Amino acid sequence: MTAFSNRIPYMREAADVVRILFESLSDPGTISFGGGAPAKEMLPVDEVAAITKDILTKEAQGYPMLQYGNPMGFPALRQAVVEHLLVPGGLPAKYENIIISSGGMEGVSLAGHLYLDPGDVVLVESPTFVQSLETFQFFQANIVAVETDDHGFVIEALEDNIKKHHPKLIYVIPTFQNPSGRTTTLERRKAIAELASRYDVMVLEDDPYFELRYSGQALPPVKSFDKTGHVMYANSFSKIFAPGCRLGYVYAEKEIVDRMYDVKTALNSMTTVLPQVICAEFFNRGLYPGQLKRNRAVHCERRDAMMNSLSAHMPEGVTWVYPDGGLFTWAQLPGGLSSTDLLPEIMAAGVTYLPGRQFFAEGQPILDNCMRLSFGQMPPEVIDQGIQKMAKVIKSKLR
Amino acid sequence: MTAFSNRIPYMREAADVVRILFESLSDPGTISFGGGAPAKEMLPVDEVAAITKDILTKEAQGYPMLQYGNPMGFPALRQAVVEHLLVPGGLPAKYENIIISSGGMEGVSLAGHLYLDPGDVVLVESPTFVQSLETFQFFQANIVAVETDDHGFVIEALEDNIKKHHPKLIYVIPTFQNPSGRTTTLERRKAIAELASRYDVMVLEDDPYFELRYSGQALPPVKSFDKTGHVMYANSFSKIFAPGCRLGYVYAEKEIVDRMYDVKTALNSMTTVLPQVICAEFFNRGLYPGQLKRNRAVHCERRDAMMNSLSAHMPEGVTWVYPDGGLFTWAQLPGGLSSTDLLPEIMAAGVTYLPGRQFFAEGQPILDNCMRLSFGQMPPEVIDQGIQKMAKVIKSKLR
Repeated sequence: MTAFSNRIPYMREAADVVRILFESLSDPGTISFGGGAPAKEMLPVDEVAAITKDILTKEAQGYPMLQYGNPMGFPALRQAVVEHLLVPGGLPAKYENIIISSGGMEGVSLAGHLYLDPGDVVLVESPTFVQSLETFQFFQANIVAVETDDHGFVIEALEDNIKKHHPKLIYVIPTFQNPSGRTTTLERRKAIAELASRYDVMVLEDDPYFELRYSGQALPPVKSFDKTGHVMYANSFSKIFAPGCRLGYVYAEKEIVDRMYDVKTALNSMTTVLPQVICAEFFNRGLYPGQLKRNRAVHCERRDAMMNSLSAHMPEGVTWVYPDGGLFTWAQLPGGLSSTDLLPEIMAAGVTYLPGRQFFAEGQPILDNCMRLSFGQMPPEVIDQGIQKMAKVIKSKLR
Repeated sequence: MTAFSNRIPYMREAADVVRILFESLSDPGTISFGGGAPAKEMLPVDEVAAITKDILTKEAQGYPMLQYGNPMGFPALRQAVVEHLLVPGGLPAKYENIIISSGGMEGVSLAGHLYLDPGDVVLVESPTFVQSLETFQFFQANIVAVETDDHGFVIEALEDNIKKHHPKLIYVIPTFQNPSGRTTTLERRKAIAELASRYDVMVLEDDPYFELRYSGQALPPVKSFDKTGHVMYANSFSKIFAPGCRLGYVYAEKEIVDRMYDVKTALNSMTTVLPQVICAEFFNRGLYPGQLKRNRAVHCERRDAMMNSLSAHMPEGVTWVYPDGGLFTWAQLPGGLSSTDLLPEIMAAGVTYLPGRQFFAEGQPILDNCMRLSFGQMPPEVIDQGIQKMAKVIKSKLR
């Protein structure tokens, strides 16, 4: 075989995990707490069908939605992001500051393309999203994990690491974090924006769970405290519309999204047009508020089911995060148990989850007794069955 | 502003051209020979509407097509590529060798991600597709243009450049090339595959116009002569289904497409699912052969219209390529005329085209008297009007 480029060997290990993650999504026989998908029952199938029927005619928008589109995104969808998502969420965004991405992950990789050369330092939460770690590895970045507690980055540790490593990028998932379910406090959000300005470091704020809040008070994004253009705000339509449409967006300085346009044309020309037109129409027909309300209700019920089931069945010493929204909790096992070693036995009992070690950067402190549990995909009664099965195996190891 | 990564300044100039190219697509007032879009009248709007109506129900495939999918692609579409496109086209492809990409350009960029580090040499035809030049610039590659005649790469020049530069990649558009409309001969196709094996160089065969043949005999792809796994075959659904669906594929060794999977998960997780399901159904309902026949007939009529109009109206000394398929011809102006300098005046007359200089690698010999003329987007009578308007301006310069 002809030798691959230098970036390829960097990324192999994480990619294997992601592969398992995606494949676990499609096995109907198991109780999956593994993948990060939202409830399939909440996907707007009927709405998408009705919209598509109306607009996919030659007379309406049939031609443009099957023809090449604009690499910045479909204009009506960029406008919908501003009107229906960002401005109501407290961000004074303008149309020219929005680029549509092919899913939330492309927002992360576009930021990487713009700012990362091999060896550049990226500061991440510990733990953080496994697929973003894979993306930063792809850029041959030097990933440095920063101490994180129940309220997000420990700000003193973040500043120390900025001074020590002169990072190019700070990566933060401030709201119902993946994998931990934790939320960064208001004060720390302000502090992150302030540190970025003071030390001239870019922040990538990845906020795909922002809209999925079930309890507690909404917090403004880090981006809302950004006075110097150092924060790129990335979000996704996967949790509020449909993951399979692969739509997301980045809100940042015009100079930044304009360069993202250049990168997109070099990598894939543009985001798929048909789903953008359908999604824009979903917002413009006023379907989003009702859908979001039902979406939150369904996921809240599943969050509660998992919290109640963990309390009822897990042996003493097991702890977990109470998430105010999103799709995940983060459980910690006692007695030196390894969630990696336990996985085969729990899978044999018909349940999957993601071992915590996958969410830590290589060469950094790893908590192998942790696991990410997703409550998005299973109905409440199945969640209860799954947690009972897991608890039985864990108890047997603690005897 | 925080400094961008090293790759960003490399790509600016080409990106500006691509921006103009995409924007010219959406101006209804001009006669466009500029963009590379197929005839909008051939887009299967009714077929897509009918398919979507049938399958977008909860009971059918509504859930999976709105949920996360597999980064290798929707299984039925990978299978359709093998059965309906590659095997009939003379390539003994297997399912495991196919990865679905987000349009044909993602095939090019995936190959770049796999093989190109900064400074690596890529050999290209002269001229070659402007957007691929942008992609190779993005990888900070050293782009070397190889002498090309009416029959593709001059093989002796290709071998000399391989010996001299030890390239990582040879990029070739063998069939109805973009921008020239030229087709690489059978003997040269064999020779390219043979040189790649002998010198251990990867070939990226970009073949998006393969199916759009209007005259002459079909030629087997370079990939069909590849005995050592050195050829990656990339193709697109943009010209045979719909550009706005952003679907393409790569056919290569399993080890290569498996690494492309890793890259895709790091960059955008996966290709959008909904259009993949619709496209697979388009093939599996047997709609492709009839659509292709109509598609070829419409584009053939436009090719003929442009050829006839050029013959009838262009002044002596103007030459052009007779393409046996695809969407482009390549015209050359006499008398030291520059197609770049001429563009404003021809645009003022209501016609656009792409100046030839954009299709040459920077720092390489450039033919500024050439232009790419696309005959895909305009009906025959409009093509004739446009060529007459152009001819009038050109004649006025030759007086």
